[in-house]
Amino acid sequence: MNDADNRLMEGILFTDMYQLTMAQLYFRHGIHEQQAHFDHFFRKYPDYGGHQAGYCVNAGLEWLLDWMETAHFDDAALHYLEQERDSHGNPVFQKDFLEYLREEGNFKKITIKSVAEGRVVHPMVPLTMVEGPLAMAQILETALLNCINFQTLIATKTSRIRHSCGGKMLMEFGLRRAHGLGGNQGARAALIGGCDYTSNVGLSYVMGLPPKGTHSHAMVQAWLALGKSEEESFQAYADLYPDNCLLLVDTIDALHSGMPHAINVFKRLRASGHEPLGVRIDSGDLAYLAAKISNMLDEAGFPKACIVLSNDLDEMTIMQIDSQIRDDAKRTGVDAEHVINRLSYGVGTKLITSDGQSALGGVYKLVALKVKDEWVPAMKLTDSISKMINPGHKTAWRIYDDRQRATADLISFADEQPGQEEDLMLHHPVEKSMFRALKKSEISKIEPLLETVWANGGKTRPAPSLEEMRQNRLRDIAALDTGVLRMRNPHIYHVSLSTRLLEAKLELINKFRTSVDK
Amino acid sequence: MNDADNRLMEGILFTDMYQLTMAQLYFRHGIHEQQAHFDHFFRKYPDYGGHQAGYCVNAGLEWLLDWMETAHFDDAALHYLEQERDSHGNPVFQKDFLEYLREEGNFKKITIKSVAEGRVVHPMVPLTMVEGPLAMAQILETALLNCINFQTLIATKTSRIRHSCGGKMLMEFGLRRAHGLGGNQGARAALIGGCDYTSNVGLSYVMGLPPKGTHSHAMVQAWLALGKSEEESFQAYADLYPDNCLLLVDTIDALHSGMPHAINVFKRLRASGHEPLGVRIDSGDLAYLAAKISNMLDEAGFPKACIVLSNDLDEMTIMQIDSQIRDDAKRTGVDAEHVINRLSYGVGTKLITSDGQSALGGVYKLVALKVKDEWVPAMKLTDSISKMINPGHKTAWRIYDDRQRATADLISFADEQPGQEEDLMLHHPVEKSMFRALKKSEISKIEPLLETVWANGGKTRPAPSLEEMRQNRLRDIAALDTGVLRMRNPHIYHVSLSTRLLEAKLELINKFRTSVDK
Repeated sequence: MNDADNRLMEGILFTDMYQLTMAQLYFRHGIHEQQAHFDHFFRKYPDYGGHQAGYCVNAGLEWLLDWMETAHFDDAALHYLEQERDSHGNPVFQKDFLEYLREEGNFKKITIKSVAEGRVVHPMVPLTMVEGPLAMAQILETALLNCINFQTLIATKTSRIRHSCGGKMLMEFGLRRAHGLGGNQGARAALIGGCDYTSNVGLSYVMGLPPKGTHSHAMVQAWLALGKSEEESFQAYADLYPDNCLLLVDTIDALHSGMPHAINVFKRLRASGHEPLGVRIDSGDLAYLAAKISNMLDEAGFPKACIVLSNDLDEMTIMQIDSQIRDDAKRTGVDAEHVINRLSYGVGTKLITSDGQSALGGVYKLVALKVKDEWVPAMKLTDSISKMINPGHKTAWRIYDDRQRATADLISFADEQPGQEEDLMLHHPVEKSMFRALKKSEISKIEPLLETVWANGGKTRPAPSLEEMRQNRLRDIAALDTGVLRMRNPHIYHVSLSTRLLEAKLELINKFRTSVDK
Repeated sequence: MNDADNRLMEGILFTDMYQLTMAQLYFRHGIHEQQAHFDHFFRKYPDYGGHQAGYCVNAGLEWLLDWMETAHFDDAALHYLEQERDSHGNPVFQKDFLEYLREEGNFKKITIKSVAEGRVVHPMVPLTMVEGPLAMAQILETALLNCINFQTLIATKTSRIRHSCGGKMLMEFGLRRAHGLGGNQGARAALIGGCDYTSNVGLSYVMGLPPKGTHSHAMVQAWLALGKSEEESFQAYADLYPDNCLLLVDTIDALHSGMPHAINVFKRLRASGHEPLGVRIDSGDLAYLAAKISNMLDEAGFPKACIVLSNDLDEMTIMQIDSQIRDDAKRTGVDAEHVINRLSYGVGTKLITSDGQSALGGVYKLVALKVKDEWVPAMKLTDSISKMINPGHKTAWRIYDDRQRATADLISFADEQPGQEEDLMLHHPVEKSMFRALKKSEISKIEPLLETVWANGGKTRPAPSLEEMRQNRLRDIAALDTGVLRMRNPHIYHVSLSTRLLEAKLELINKFRTSVDK
């Protein structure tokens, strides 16, 4: 694979073959420019096996838009498609279609409405709605799903880990175990979802953050192989990085070798006018070791030195470490809060792969087609009723109750304006007898969830900063009931349909069902 | 993120910060050019939760070497590193080190020995051994682990799925649920591990294969929204792709709508001189539907049309589908083998994310450092004894018994030549009392596992073709005991140490332990 191959793989041909065969069919039937509306949504929160998300954090959009700015059918892509042959050796793609792709095979006529990155999102509510010519809106599917499904998965996992470690420092360390170049997308999502920093150098550059990291076991091993000591390796590190001195103490034995050596070095460091940052442990019983090490640091006069934990951490392990430190403290008299408050976390494999649930099943469904200036709803019937798409040209809202808490998301037709009536009706997605009626006085805000982010060939607004995306997350999480934030068996947040949408949906299901039964 | 950002993220800065801080420390102490030997290996087979791998399939190497050909510290990377500041605002990287990186920050002085891609590999046996200047060998760690860990993970998962579907067609469809750009690496690994084709267009181009795919539900939905019928959409598709006609029949109702419509179209297709490829189903009870659909196709005169199954398939689901078809056939008199033999499989999410075990815990450990022309073994002690690295400048062998079956892998020092003595001693990795002694007459072959693939600044041989990598896999799997291939609780393949290596390892552990106890 050379550089040209790499560009081709990451460009417009980062797609599934059937998008192109369908696009050619649309072209052949003259409907390739017909206005279509696709919804991108997921059906279920991640279930990690034993613990489950009660909300997701939306991420990935801006990098999709960046891709859309440059992806197009260039000579290399078209040349390749021209060579494709069917089972009888005939060209799969015909010249007029390839010419169309050369001229119009870009995303200039697409409009995208989307939930902002960092915002909390829920099942069945579109994260992204794509409108535009049927052929190019179809071709966009693969890149859109790839980009937003994965980053939303990782931002969600990170938000849970952030929750479990409170306000303490959280760093993403997973590049070595990430899924190839997806490690960059994952690290970005981790920063949106709640990590303070990442060790990924290139990605840190792009996000405008300093990358984090100090040293691994290899450094100590190298000094030992050279006939020197662990303490000499620590001293060398401290001499070079006197104001960034964080030492990994578990190459030989954390309590009996690493810590005494680190403390000797820390004392010399202080004598020379610098304060150590702290130590890191990457193996063993982290809760037990953290309490012991905290004591050793205190006794040596370093009560402010931090203790970074790493090694297969996730939200449940971090909760358990805190809980073990507290349990142990009851027996030993250690100040548990002091130990816990000085912890930082480096999270790798289990964050960057979303351990336990390594994909978000987001889908991209055709929900409406414009025929003679009218949006005609599109449907697919074979799913179980709870999985069925919500057809039609729609939009979505978040309803806040009188405590300023998010109480439900509401999906309606795009031309509806909920909140005009005295009672706001929130319908179960398929069950007509199940609904809530909210009085105007019980509602503090009805907020449109989607905004236009791409139109007329480009982005409609400057890219949001990382800080804005993080603030979106913090604000939305603060508006959730605490039951929704629970790590296991979270409270189910309500996602509802408007009266008109539910009726139209049931009518359409009925119509199709009848046509099959005939 | 613009194009320049993307290149920077995928170049030499696709690494963890600590590789660079350590490299600077080595530079400062004048040991950056000291010859180092790092081993890359994994400690455990993937455990998918309820089923486990008994072998892995090595993959990823060639793309790592491609990356190494171009990755280097260019102006953009160096400029960024120059800006990095420590907690006191002082530069993290100093000018002389950055100058060194500019001149020598590439992989020209590195030598890599590796197991060939496609070959079966086992825990603790190095897949890759890196020798070269300590600083650049250290910096290589992140990209190497990222590339080979992930592709090996996916090639392994795919090999299991290939096993479960026998010789039938297997296609990779996962790009929409893959981890960002990692979808390309994953699809490549899937092709090595046993997929015949992928739907990923760009990756197919790079691998020299035709991409596969026909149409999704959206096509049928579009026709319906335009007031036309499912059958008309099928007919349109057949007209355009008469020799590639594979129809997705479950948009409305597979048995009552999709199949009758597809058969009508197939009959007209045949009348016009073309044979249909078959149908695809993507929802519902796939085993039940496959049997019914097979019958319908037979009765309509299309006994050779294939049935493609998709929708969250993995190795266990595929086994279960076959088994359900057979169980059902006993009651209904259907010819189960006929149904099963016409199946093909499109596998997406669960393959491309290695569902159940979404990371291979491969590590990269400093095992030796050359001091005055002698390789001095390097060690790390804090792991449990079973996780401890095998220190020293080593190599690895595969031992075949008198049935030509692979009976064990053997790790030895690089200068050992096993098989010279009457008895070949195969030692347990840490337990001195556990060993096997193989007589010369019981051994048909002692095969070196690693070959030099990178030296003197580039690849030492042409890149192997996809076909060669696939043949490596087939040959190695044929040499495994069937118990090792078992989906659950596989037989444990033996990985052994030579007498000299075991003794040196135990001595080193003892030496370090004693130094701590002092």
